[in-house]
Amino acid sequence: MNRKELILNIKKKRSFLCVGLDTELKKIPAHLLEFEDPVFEFNKRIINATIDYTVAYKPNIAFYEAMGVQGWNSLQKTINYLEPYRNEVFLIADAKRGDIGNTSSQYARTFFDKKVSGFDFNAVTVAPYMGEDSVKPFLEHQNKWVVLLALTSNKGANDFQFLQITGDEIKFLFQKVLEISSKWGTPDNMMFVVGATQAVMLREVRKIVPNHFLLVPGVGAQGGSLQQVAEYGMNPDCGLLVNASRSILYASQEKDFDANAREEAKKLKEEMAQYLADYSKI
Amino acid sequence: MNRKELILNIKKKRSFLCVGLDTELKKIPAHLLEFEDPVFEFNKRIINATIDYTVAYKPNIAFYEAMGVQGWNSLQKTINYLEPYRNEVFLIADAKRGDIGNTSSQYARTFFDKKVSGFDFNAVTVAPYMGEDSVKPFLEHQNKWVVLLALTSNKGANDFQFLQITGDEIKFLFQKVLEISSKWGTPDNMMFVVGATQAVMLREVRKIVPNHFLLVPGVGAQGGSLQQVAEYGMNPDCGLLVNASRSILYASQEKDFDANAREEAKKLKEEMAQYLADYSKI
Repeated sequence: MNRKELILNIKKKRSFLCVGLDTELKKIPAHLLEFEDPVFEFNKRIINATIDYTVAYKPNIAFYEAMGVQGWNSLQKTINYLEPYRNEVFLIADAKRGDIGNTSSQYARTFFDKKVSGFDFNAVTVAPYMGEDSVKPFLEHQNKWVVLLALTSNKGANDFQFLQITGDEIKFLFQKVLEISSKWGTPDNMMFVVGATQAVMLREVRKIVPNHFLLVPGVGAQGGSLQQVAEYGMNPDCGLLVNASRSILYASQEKDFDANAREEAKKLKEEMAQYLADYSKI
Repeated sequence: MNRKELILNIKKKRSFLCVGLDTELKKIPAHLLEFEDPVFEFNKRIINATIDYTVAYKPNIAFYEAMGVQGWNSLQKTINYLEPYRNEVFLIADAKRGDIGNTSSQYARTFFDKKVSGFDFNAVTVAPYMGEDSVKPFLEHQNKWVVLLALTSNKGANDFQFLQITGDEIKFLFQKVLEISSKWGTPDNMMFVVGATQAVMLREVRKIVPNHFLLVPGVGAQGGSLQQVAEYGMNPDCGLLVNASRSILYASQEKDFDANAREEAKKLKEEMAQYLADYSKI
């Protein structure tokens, strides 16, 4: 999916919601455990419940990997299940990968090259620490995206991302990461992660990357404000994908958990529709 | 394996060699392609050929992941094959993971918790960008290790790792990463990645972490000097695991590739034995 198509989907659905499929066996409703593949059954119901309000899904790869081969099978089935919807949802492998060039090439194949691995995500999240040659191999895949970590939503963001870098003007590390890495690609193949818990910093982020899409986790369970994210981070094309995971997935532990998940997604969508009207041109 | 046992193995084998199992189907000798699982067959032969000279193996997870479920199966078989040797070799999952706390917990289970995933590596490589709470969940596993990226061997290391951080004394980002992160664990559960291509910086690294083990990639195909690494980086306990991957694995494309791999490993071991005599006390 290219940038234009993504923007069109946001425009049509009046939503920039990304649902994070961080599925944990011990958190899903007990009645699903009777199925052969409870993780896939859960994901299927969550997808059915939320697809009307969602423009992206983001499985967090850790949750699948931790279940070994079985987990990769559940992930594969989930992605296959989304096949008929690929025109309307953007798929992000939240994997936070990144390694020296020949290794990053392998990771890129894992998530982008269906012939090799069975997966063809639209995007993968990548960590910046190892620099350009750790990111470039992902960008070599036509029509695929890198979502690079810039300013994350967790407490540990303070350990390094706010270190002050010397120069004509003192800048935070995350600002240098944005400045330098935004030259490796374009707004057509790069996005940046900026946590909703860092909403006030979105103004600074937008000074450096006015046109890029930002993937914003941290609304919901992590406590970030959607209103602030929209006010400080939205650009004329919207330029935001806001992720919610736990607040939707685990809205309820009952048999009708999917109705609750739908309700949560709908609420977010309605709030988003308002912000699109207020702050964007789409 | 704890620090004492690792040092004892280095002392016994007179080697601090780690063999990187970065196995690629298209690079292994053609005759192995006839086997049901060529990657495992290759790894098995490499292990048999190098075990006498090696104190650690480091499968790079990317190379297995990129083959989907089949790749994870090959990795599992490789780790199972190493079972009888677990007292003499340290196993590192080179995965460069790291995410917010609840997600890093999942990654830790992936690589450390055999009951959950089938894997029980001794250590996993982790990226520092997301800070303390992305690293801590790995350290909560008893007798397991984090190998944190500090100064990597690739060209992209120059993009961020040498940014200068303000303070009483100006420091490079990698120095701040070492300073700050070394407080999260101890020399008994943390190591740091420092590329052999950055050997002259090992003196600076040792000022901050005199006692930690360093995992040093970049000797061999990447061109780093083992002599410099030992001279600048070794401490009285050795404190080094030097990794070679391509120069050993792909020493030859012929049927006797394993004899060539053995020869390469032996050469490195002999050089290492000399450096242990020259620069360490073990």
